[in-house]
Amino acid sequence: MDHGYVRGRLRNPDEAPASGEEARELLAFGGAVVEQILSGRLEAPADYLQPQDEWVVVLAGAAMLEVAGETLELAARDWLFLPAGLPHRLVRTEPGTDWLAIHLHRPGD
Amino acid sequence: MDHGYVRGRLRNPDEAPASGEEARELLAFGGAVVEQILSGRLEAPADYLQPQDEWVVVLAGAAMLEVAGETLELAARDWLFLPAGLPHRLVRTEPGTDWLAIHLHRPGD
Repeated sequence: MDHGYVRGRLRNPDEAPASGEEARELLAFGGAVVEQILSGRLEAPADYLQPQDEWVVVLAGAAMLEVAGETLELAARDWLFLPAGLPHRLVRTEPGTDWLAIHLHRPGD
Repeated sequence: MDHGYVRGRLRNPDEAPASGEEARELLAFGGAVVEQILSGRLEAPADYLQPQDEWVVVLAGAAMLEVAGETLELAARDWLFLPAGLPHRLVRTEPGTDWLAIHLHRPGD
């Protein structure tokens, strides 16, 4: 990468797929990856176990997750930090849910 | 920090100050700091030179910056990456501008 700026624009939630989710990487810098995820209706709960720390914020829509035995309802403007190695399950997403996610690799990964 | 999740909620843009800006750290993890910045009308251009990489996205409102001799207009959903050490000037912000920013310290900082 050179030493200049980089710019871009988030997609609109109305570009979300009807079902499933579409994640697009916006930028990787240092050990961080920033991505936008547009979700449609979830066909089945999805289990995740990630080797990176993850911070997500819901920009539009809503979702339900299960984390550490708890059910979390997230609406627009709610954010969630999931440390590396914490299993979590995405149970439900509202069509047109718009997420911004930051994945951060820990040093040595 | 323990190994559980952390959650929170972004403030609404109508909580922005009338002038100047109010930055609040949401979370620090690894070498990353996530913050929300609510801006009112800018009283004077503000110059920045930061030792960290910075990724920002405008969630609401609009702003004008000068970076590397160029004038950048940012509206809602526009994002901008400013590498560490790149001088930039915030020239104008619309009242109620809502930013999400990620600052990333490079290893060894």
